[in-house]
Amino acid sequence: MTVHKETTAKFLETIRKVKSYEEALGVLYWDLRTGAPRKGMDTRSEAIGALSGDMFKLSTSPELGEYLNELEQPAAQEQLSDIERKLVSETRKDYDRSVKIPPKLYQEYVVLASQSESKWEEAKANNDYAGFQPYLEKVINYTQQFIDLWGPKATRYDTLLDQYEPGMTTAELDRVFGGLREQLVPLASAIAASPHQPDTSFLGQKYDKQAQKAFSLFILNQMGYNFEAGRLDESTHPFATGLNPGDVRITTRYLENDVTSALFGTIHEGGHALYEQNIMPELIGTTLCTGTSMGIHESQSRFWENVIGRSKPFWEQYFGKLQENFPGQLDVSVDQFYRGINVVEPSLIRIEADELTYNLHIIIRYEIEKMIFNEGAKAADLPAIWNDKYKEYLGIVPPSNAEGVLQDVHWSGGAFGYFPSYSLGNMYAAQMADTMERELDGFWNLVGRGELLPIKEWLTERIYKYGKLKSPSELIQSVTGKPLDPQHLVNYLERKYKDIYKL
Amino acid sequence: MTVHKETTAKFLETIRKVKSYEEALGVLYWDLRTGAPRKGMDTRSEAIGALSGDMFKLSTSPELGEYLNELEQPAAQEQLSDIERKLVSETRKDYDRSVKIPPKLYQEYVVLASQSESKWEEAKANNDYAGFQPYLEKVINYTQQFIDLWGPKATRYDTLLDQYEPGMTTAELDRVFGGLREQLVPLASAIAASPHQPDTSFLGQKYDKQAQKAFSLFILNQMGYNFEAGRLDESTHPFATGLNPGDVRITTRYLENDVTSALFGTIHEGGHALYEQNIMPELIGTTLCTGTSMGIHESQSRFWENVIGRSKPFWEQYFGKLQENFPGQLDVSVDQFYRGINVVEPSLIRIEADELTYNLHIIIRYEIEKMIFNEGAKAADLPAIWNDKYKEYLGIVPPSNAEGVLQDVHWSGGAFGYFPSYSLGNMYAAQMADTMERELDGFWNLVGRGELLPIKEWLTERIYKYGKLKSPSELIQSVTGKPLDPQHLVNYLERKYKDIYKL
Repeated sequence: MTVHKETTAKFLETIRKVKSYEEALGVLYWDLRTGAPRKGMDTRSEAIGALSGDMFKLSTSPELGEYLNELEQPAAQEQLSDIERKLVSETRKDYDRSVKIPPKLYQEYVVLASQSESKWEEAKANNDYAGFQPYLEKVINYTQQFIDLWGPKATRYDTLLDQYEPGMTTAELDRVFGGLREQLVPLASAIAASPHQPDTSFLGQKYDKQAQKAFSLFILNQMGYNFEAGRLDESTHPFATGLNPGDVRITTRYLENDVTSALFGTIHEGGHALYEQNIMPELIGTTLCTGTSMGIHESQSRFWENVIGRSKPFWEQYFGKLQENFPGQLDVSVDQFYRGINVVEPSLIRIEADELTYNLHIIIRYEIEKMIFNEGAKAADLPAIWNDKYKEYLGIVPPSNAEGVLQDVHWSGGAFGYFPSYSLGNMYAAQMADTMERELDGFWNLVGRGELLPIKEWLTERIYKYGKLKSPSELIQSVTGKPLDPQHLVNYLERKYKDIYKL
Repeated sequence: MTVHKETTAKFLETIRKVKSYEEALGVLYWDLRTGAPRKGMDTRSEAIGALSGDMFKLSTSPELGEYLNELEQPAAQEQLSDIERKLVSETRKDYDRSVKIPPKLYQEYVVLASQSESKWEEAKANNDYAGFQPYLEKVINYTQQFIDLWGPKATRYDTLLDQYEPGMTTAELDRVFGGLREQLVPLASAIAASPHQPDTSFLGQKYDKQAQKAFSLFILNQMGYNFEAGRLDESTHPFATGLNPGDVRITTRYLENDVTSALFGTIHEGGHALYEQNIMPELIGTTLCTGTSMGIHESQSRFWENVIGRSKPFWEQYFGKLQENFPGQLDVSVDQFYRGINVVEPSLIRIEADELTYNLHIIIRYEIEKMIFNEGAKAADLPAIWNDKYKEYLGIVPPSNAEGVLQDVHWSGGAFGYFPSYSLGNMYAAQMADTMERELDGFWNLVGRGELLPIKEWLTERIYKYGKLKSPSELIQSVTGKPLDPQHLVNYLERKYKDIYKL
């Protein structure tokens, strides 16, 4: 018994140290993206490399393997707390995944991924898919090797999905994305054909940056973002980073000619941040102290950004305040504003897409990734496949690869299996909102009165506080009483857009 | 031969890694002091502890000891470059210093120092020397043990001085501080008795913070501070931190009711930063890539702040620009402004003291530290000693210990031997300025025209680029052609203040 206690202590100490390194690296990355001087980059990269290397050694050490072996024994398991047991099983997953890749192979891959990312940047700027293709081929090839080493699941692509959404499978995604696609494609067509198109002209003025910032800070406060446990900065690409629950930082980007960019960017990152700020203190210092999956994380950013932030009750409460920040510039009714920020248009670029068509962008990427890893599609085939699918689902064909297959960074760095998280987020969010509408008394009245804290509390009690203690599927089941069901997102979008477009 | 090459490579790699850890920790400390959220502090401290511990292990590892043993052999020394040889000898000094302290003793001391610092803060706020005294006694006691372990030099206090100013001795400081004290005490008295006291009333208005910031950025640009290799932020206590020559950050503090605080604070930290930004690239990734001593570092901040920044030619060039930043607020002549920023007054608080009396504050601390470590003065005796010396050198007696012996943080954290650096900086700066006046054609005309870059170049070629390659005494000898001579500071101060006070 004492033996297990000692091993448990050593195990927890190792995890705490891994977490400390992760936190230090988190600060270094945050710093790089929020204004670190250009000329210090090379030396900083070396420091990041040194720390990452030591963290990797620690998290793949034979000692850690021995602690796991011992703590997985039934006699030891019995003595562990629930948190410790979960920490052992999660650490086992990470450990096995890491030790299965030979360090030399991983090193080669890291170098390749970094080259491939800069090559992609160049290729996108020059619309040069041919220049990027050999790098993409190699990245795919390494990823195939990793699948072999990790071990294929029901399909080869499942092994990749599991990295970002534990337990998610191709079969499940086929089911939910199939349901989405069938209903969203006709809805998008009906919207395009509606004579009641919103006016968006008033949005494109010059909006003072300081006033945008003031409103961002105001809205974060309204959401219950804790500024004693975070800060708001600027970066080219907005992000949230949870260093620990007491330090969860967000960034946004102020575009002078687009008041909605910082507005919804801030609410989106604020949603991610609320998740990380409200994880229970018992998980601090463990690797369970973060969101349970990319999809669930995204559900929180999108719940706050879209379900709440693009709703009519929200703007009935806050539009006056927004107008005050930009005197004379938003001289429209709240209804016009609401319709303007909810315009739906088939477009080429995912990150600029609206709530509805966004999902079609994701489904296209999902289907292509499946073709690569389950059906052997080659890098050379991707531009044609891409363009065909855009024609089929969105009715438009990219005039160039730069606006098509080259638009996203993800594949260049080997992040295959990541894209589905975005739409999973939308589906989880709609399903949770459906439950919330039924369980939280007067939900939309709260939003309409700007009483957002009870909503944050509801999410904290059911989702945030658990960190990684529950898996994504356990979480959606426990919150909503059933498994993921894409119909909630379809219902939500239909209700919203049938009203806006008078269908 | 190949053997030495391999050892050299391993040695350099170890040093690079130590340096990487130092840089990562530097970012974490910078972050803590420039706005890290309060609630994340505990977890962040743990991360800092983990990294510091690993860095200490690395820099005291038996392997590093073996590399040093081998590379110190004549056969190996022959094969090393100048930089490598210097790196071996400097690393040996640090290594021996670190390994001589038993880890357990050091650990106890770190805990004590941290407790003592918070006790000091409390004691200062409550004017409670008795509450602080037992902690100070313990800190002194540990420091005495460290002197025994490191080995006393000519005197016990010399061992402490050597930490901050390598090679500096009590004998040398007695010589230079003796010269200073004898001449500055009567000069300060003559100034106090002068009927020509400057008017400072115009300085105490409300000065817009954004305008202060704009002028800080302007002056840093004029000095040749490279914003691609640095950034300016805010913190309660201004500081400069050289993470690597491509990333040297400074902070300042904007007081609305005192336009001179940020102004001279920025120039001061800018001087520190110019030193670190201009170290030769060959030293990057080595522990030689920093200023050679605290005193030489301080000479650069004080050269820029006082010799240049409080000079008449400087303001003949820049006062108009300063006035533009504060329309209607600085409605005085440049001569009135110059006299106003150079007022001399005996005062109780070191950090608020002028250029002249500042040195008397330092001499008092130096004499007390010497009494503690060379003559056995006790913590209980310090308030009385302190007050007597203030009466003797400055003609004033602190009305409370809070404004006397408790005013500085240094002793609470065990930084004995540090204070002399400040006045060494003043003396080095004056001596270098004397050489510069003779060697740099039309030096004061350059300042008067705002052509500061040739001055930065001159300092780079003679001081900055060498980092720690030259010791402080080698440096002052090579720059000025002779050893440290306090007479230059006395001459500089006499010339300046006899004019201002019409003595």
